Amino acid sequence: MKMNKIINLLSRNKSENNIEVYGWVKTFRANRFIAINDGSTILNLQCVIDFEKTDKSVLKRITTGAAIKVIGDLIESQGSGQKFEVKVNHILIIGDSDPDLYPIQPKKHSLEFLREKAHLRIRTTTFNAVMRIRSVLSFAVHDFFQKKNFFYINTPIITGSDAEGAGEMFKVTTQNYNTNNDVKEDFFGKETHLTVSGQLEAESYAMGLGNVYTFGPTFRAENSNTTRHLAEFWMIEPEMAFFNLNDNMDLAEEFIKAVLEKLTLKCEDDLLFLNNRYLNEQKNKPSNQRSEMDLIEKINFVVKNSFKRISYTEAISILKNSKPNKKNKFKYKINEWGVDLQSEHERFLVEKHFKCPVIIYDYPTKIKAFYMRVNDDNKTVRAMDVLFPGIGEIVGGSQREERLEVLKKRMKELHVDENELWWYLDLRRFGSVPHSGFGLGFERLVQFSTGMSNIRDVIPFPRTPQNASF
Amino acid sequence: MKMNKIINLLSRNKSENNIEVYGWVKTFRANRFIAINDGSTILNLQCVIDFEKTDKSVLKRITTGAAIKVIGDLIESQGSGQKFEVKVNHILIIGDSDPDLYPIQPKKHSLEFLREKAHLRIRTTTFNAVMRIRSVLSFAVHDFFQKKNFFYINTPIITGSDAEGAGEMFKVTTQNYNTNNDVKEDFFGKETHLTVSGQLEAESYAMGLGNVYTFGPTFRAENSNTTRHLAEFWMIEPEMAFFNLNDNMDLAEEFIKAVLEKLTLKCEDDLLFLNNRYLNEQKNKPSNQRSEMDLIEKINFVVKNSFKRISYTEAISILKNSKPNKKNKFKYKINEWGVDLQSEHERFLVEKHFKCPVIIYDYPTKIKAFYMRVNDDNKTVRAMDVLFPGIGEIVGGSQREERLEVLKKRMKELHVDENELWWYLDLRRFGSVPHSGFGLGFERLVQFSTGMSNIRDVIPFPRTPQNASF
Repeated sequence: MKMNKIINLLSRNKSENNIEVYGWVKTFRANRFIAINDGSTILNLQCVIDFEKTDKSVLKRITTGAAIKVIGDLIESQGSGQKFEVKVNHILIIGDSDPDLYPIQPKKHSLEFLREKAHLRIRTTTFNAVMRIRSVLSFAVHDFFQKKNFFYINTPIITGSDAEGAGEMFKVTTQNYNTNNDVKEDFFGKETHLTVSGQLEAESYAMGLGNVYTFGPTFRAENSNTTRHLAEFWMIEPEMAFFNLNDNMDLAEEFIKAVLEKLTLKCEDDLLFLNNRYLNEQKNKPSNQRSEMDLIEKINFVVKNSFKRISYTEAISILKNSKPNKKNKFKYKINEWGVDLQSEHERFLVEKHFKCPVIIYDYPTKIKAFYMRVNDDNKTVRAMDVLFPGIGEIVGGSQREERLEVLKKRMKELHVDENELWWYLDLRRFGSVPHSGFGLGFERLVQFSTGMSNIRDVIPFPRTPQNASF
Repeated sequence: MKMNKIINLLSRNKSENNIEVYGWVKTFRANRFIAINDGSTILNLQCVIDFEKTDKSVLKRITTGAAIKVIGDLIESQGSGQKFEVKVNHILIIGDSDPDLYPIQPKKHSLEFLREKAHLRIRTTTFNAVMRIRSVLSFAVHDFFQKKNFFYINTPIITGSDAEGAGEMFKVTTQNYNTNNDVKEDFFGKETHLTVSGQLEAESYAMGLGNVYTFGPTFRAENSNTTRHLAEFWMIEPEMAFFNLNDNMDLAEEFIKAVLEKLTLKCEDDLLFLNNRYLNEQKNKPSNQRSEMDLIEKINFVVKNSFKRISYTEAISILKNSKPNKKNKFKYKINEWGVDLQSEHERFLVEKHFKCPVIIYDYPTKIKAFYMRVNDDNKTVRAMDVLFPGIGEIVGGSQREERLEVLKKRMKELHVDENELWWYLDLRRFGSVPHSGFGLGFERLVQFSTGMSNIRDVIPFPRTPQNASF
């Protein structure tokens, strides 16, 4: 007998006798209706048993979370809400679930509570839906780039250089604390860290393969306990030879739209569920903080509209003349060109002023990284950030500085050690070309797509300060 | 003007005037023929210039590795070896490459030399081909599982538990060496490591999503300097609820065949090149060490033949009665049931006795991990290894022990701390089901597929003892 998944059973076009199906009990009511789920879809399969013919000891063991095997007839459903149901001929308890001990009961659990049970929370409808969406988005990422003839590369996780300046790093060692160690005796013979970005290595590979992308874990050891930060998260970093900043912005926009569109096509049921969840959550907010769109509307809005593109200089001008700036409503008042934009400013531009995703480009040189291409004005670099409603920065990218001497000058200004990055400079010594790339924090995209407000709820086992359980 | 990739130009069906193409110079001969490559394909594009009309200062700069932009007419090729070539109307040097300094010259470089230049080796034809194949294989992995409704999950890289016993681990810390640190003041408030496997977490997710897979980096801090070991490598780990060991073996075999078949369909040119490379390498070996099949034959052989399945007990019997055992040719003589198979034994079974991939199952309990399901004989567990010619073990898997009490007993025997794995035991407390999974070291698969003999040459920037450069 072939193993049936519920998603396949529910998409049948006719009844069938004597099918076999496995799943976990979600609910059992009236001693008659068992809703089981096997994770293949958000939809439960209704199994109808004849309690008079079922052993009482078995009935008692049909509890939430128990694993059962059902043999029965798949018939068109008598009740509403599902196309098919199973008339049970035989039921077998495979794994019990003691209702007095099982923490995941058929009631509303807080997300905080479920984080403590990260090994079991996948059994709730919400996490089941979020993680299916995460998987579909992951594959959409690969699918998009592969169809465009980009090559997937795995840049190193353990890195011997700490020169990138992208944030605080975790140390990797085989030595013990508390002893007087010589770093030369460590596994790699030198101090090593967990990577904060695969960009520089991806650039090296773009100089041979043309268009490449990474999709792997990256790390930040910053002690930030927010709803937007993880110590360990997955990042997508494409890098393209011969791309200028406009090509880069075009690709970022096309990419985001493509993966979100794929999501709307593949995850209708999960999105509907999360949409309702999102609406309920919104209801509990003060009316002035509620989102104007529901979850599905927000996704479709991004898919269907052009992202507004403005230079940093234009952004500053809009912000300077904005009502909240004039009325001193911003915590950080915008007085002059050159300041770094704060979250409140980005949110104003995206959520109030343009009401759509915004790409800001040509940022002041002083507030950006050493590898970004310096513009002819010498004041700005070819950087770009994509800002999303509710999420803030979702993509950061730039055209890279391909001119050896300019790059060296920038490194000196920013105290980046040339000797550490000798190999990166080689890329500009031999066959250097204009090239560009961006980074997208994958969890931010999953947050946007699922409406989950805390980033810890869109990755299976989140890593944050004081938390590396499971 | 649209940016053209060489792979697209070469697959055109007619000539076209005034196309624009970018690439790096591979060779320049007779002051007339420039072969350029842009990484999109192993094939070079031949660009023919009229040297009499070309500025001498430009001609001098057309050197190996230089980046150029060409505008010209795509015409059917006059010479042999390519369908199209470009009659150059205009050539622009984008990035020079000083031939006296550029390390990658159009001659044979040793793989050892190229490892020192890991940032530039992607510009060689060999690494260009290997890394395209790696990318195609990666996508084939995702494609296979997604089509089967498996969900991709990202299990944590930083782990707080060291109870898995799969090997020596790297420590992750934000503290300094050489001081008297309190581990409670570390970032996570406890000792943390880099993961050796995502299996246990994947099991937790299989209990909610049914069928899941991981594909991410894993780490071993073992000081082994071999051609088969990396400190950092990528592993694929599917985990399936309700799968027994036979289902597991079926899936592993189907999976390997599917991804290798996809490779033969998508990477014909790269495989042809690597096949020749492999044959040349074989020629330099003593005749008794040469492979009987070339690279493409080996891949097709795996795709087209059933893997031989034998129990450990059968394997021991074959080995005990084998010629090399009787003639004391094995370093480790097989005398009794229960010993761990060595690489020489596995190679004999695969390469000499069966001459095909072999799956060995039902290993002695004593030599296997705590989480494998104990058979009724109490002597063996439901483990399986897939062994490949030339590569050795490529897959290791098992049916997992779903019975709480048996699992606890095995943990006690192997001194695995129950308190560390309380959450893993919960999976058997609530709705436990028979389930199975396996792990496949991705670099071993790339090694097999490319014929590269050293695993350091199938990952962009290898991490090995004393080596964390770039």
